[in-house]
Amino acid sequence: MSGTYGNLPEAVRIVEVAPRDGWQNLGEFIPTATKVELVSELAACGFAEIEVSSFVNPRAIPQLADAAQVLAGLETPAELIRSVLVPNRRGLVAALESPVDKLVFFISASDTHNHKNLGCSQADTLVEIEAMQALVPEDRARRVSVSNVFGCPYEGEIAYDAVSRLVAALVQTGLSEITLCDTLGVAVPDQVYLFCASLQEQFPEVDFGLHLHDSCGRALACVMAGLQAGITRYDSAAGGLGGCPFAPGAAGNLATEDLVSCLERMGIATGVDPEKLLAAARRQAGIVRAGNSHMLAFTAGCRQ
Amino acid sequence: MSGTYGNLPEAVRIVEVAPRDGWQNLGEFIPTATKVELVSELAACGFAEIEVSSFVNPRAIPQLADAAQVLAGLETPAELIRSVLVPNRRGLVAALESPVDKLVFFISASDTHNHKNLGCSQADTLVEIEAMQALVPEDRARRVSVSNVFGCPYEGEIAYDAVSRLVAALVQTGLSEITLCDTLGVAVPDQVYLFCASLQEQFPEVDFGLHLHDSCGRALACVMAGLQAGITRYDSAAGGLGGCPFAPGAAGNLATEDLVSCLERMGIATGVDPEKLLAAARRQAGIVRAGNSHMLAFTAGCRQ
Repeated sequence: MSGTYGNLPEAVRIVEVAPRDGWQNLGEFIPTATKVELVSELAACGFAEIEVSSFVNPRAIPQLADAAQVLAGLETPAELIRSVLVPNRRGLVAALESPVDKLVFFISASDTHNHKNLGCSQADTLVEIEAMQALVPEDRARRVSVSNVFGCPYEGEIAYDAVSRLVAALVQTGLSEITLCDTLGVAVPDQVYLFCASLQEQFPEVDFGLHLHDSCGRALACVMAGLQAGITRYDSAAGGLGGCPFAPGAAGNLATEDLVSCLERMGIATGVDPEKLLAAARRQAGIVRAGNSHMLAFTAGCRQ
Repeated sequence: MSGTYGNLPEAVRIVEVAPRDGWQNLGEFIPTATKVELVSELAACGFAEIEVSSFVNPRAIPQLADAAQVLAGLETPAELIRSVLVPNRRGLVAALESPVDKLVFFISASDTHNHKNLGCSQADTLVEIEAMQALVPEDRARRVSVSNVFGCPYEGEIAYDAVSRLVAALVQTGLSEITLCDTLGVAVPDQVYLFCASLQEQFPEVDFGLHLHDSCGRALACVMAGLQAGITRYDSAAGGLGGCPFAPGAAGNLATEDLVSCLERMGIATGVDPEKLLAAARRQAGIVRAGNSHMLAFTAGCRQ
């Protein structure tokens, strides 16, 4: 045998985002007690972190209106990071009353999408993030997810320089954990590699992660490019659920089962128990299918 | 921007296999005239080659019983290679009476699967291939597709040495075009890279190609690994149709739309017109859906 494939890491951290990104689009409300059970089952799988919910306007995302109740009902392993999305100070204040370990801010690499998703300009969101940073207590971690880094349904491809300037502005607010999101699922591997390699070189102090959607079947190909560029933190959603309500054409997230089975077979440790994960994804599938029979695109991921 | 992603080729050849691998499993017979129309539409997309049908036992694969009639009815561009699968001398003799440019033999890297798929041992198939080689006229090209190279539903992982020995035996029969097939869709990128890099080093005279199924969402990730190892020939099926009747658990082929859209956006030329391809895949989807409503797993590939 000859040759080695890239310069791959020995381990990655997986952030399970089904309870937040996967469920937010579902038409039928999942009862709070069921959410608590499903998140608890996912929490037992060994994830580094779970995005449990969002403290957003319940009129915009009614499915996640029970964020506080879900967090209050959860019993999770001590080492699991429970994170929630917060769009602004109002959401942040509410989130800080709940047992959360990490606050996740979000902003879009596309100003047009930022308006649609957050109701204001990218510049206004930067100001809001700075204001939130001043309010977060020292003992709570924080991250920012940058959506549409690799393409936007309204603005098309986003130039690297625009992404780099936005990252610099976010670093300026004191953030050092940034997730680069392919909200639409249009990224290609060489683009992912170049963006990740360049951003890490430019911002060596930042912990960059990747959030990929599988609209065009490229998510795992982009993970490989990310790994080769040295990225060791990946978002994914059990069952491949997901899709941004304000990003038409976006399909589901990279399925956690597909990510874990691929990485583990490559000898890259994920910390996630594949059997428990499959059981959790199947239970979720039953609940989601029952309440949302229109979701034909749903797959349970790897059939292995 | 820093870094370059792998050492990628500037162009690839795509072998469209939907008419053969994609349709062979469909329960409802596609009328011969419809097949001719669909293959003609695919032929106009710019593929290097189309696997048009198989000269196999019509009782085993009734869908492809009209191979001769389809080939007789086709009008395709002069540069398009029309290939057909032949399992044995009986199929070969029939195929040679049709206007075909290339004969595709097949054998399995797993002896158990070879028995199920071809009804005899791997050793017997090697003898049959040798006998067929003696019968093929000089002006007809030939290839062999080796199934289950990266894993078998019956034997599990296949050792590299077993694959290498089989390739050596096939080269011994005079073959110099070999497709490595992940019939189940269980390959992982580092395995694909290692197998491809090693086989090419060991057999520099052989033109190796890859045939990938997307059962676990890894097909494009494996294409990237193949590209990085220098492989420039890929099978794929419009609409992601497919699945071997004797490989339980296998899902559809890598969708040609997904392959073409990804490669073209990376600046790797495929020769395929993406608009014509999408139109052909959509027309096929309408026909396949109408006659095979059980195929819920079917997707039209990239939604872009």
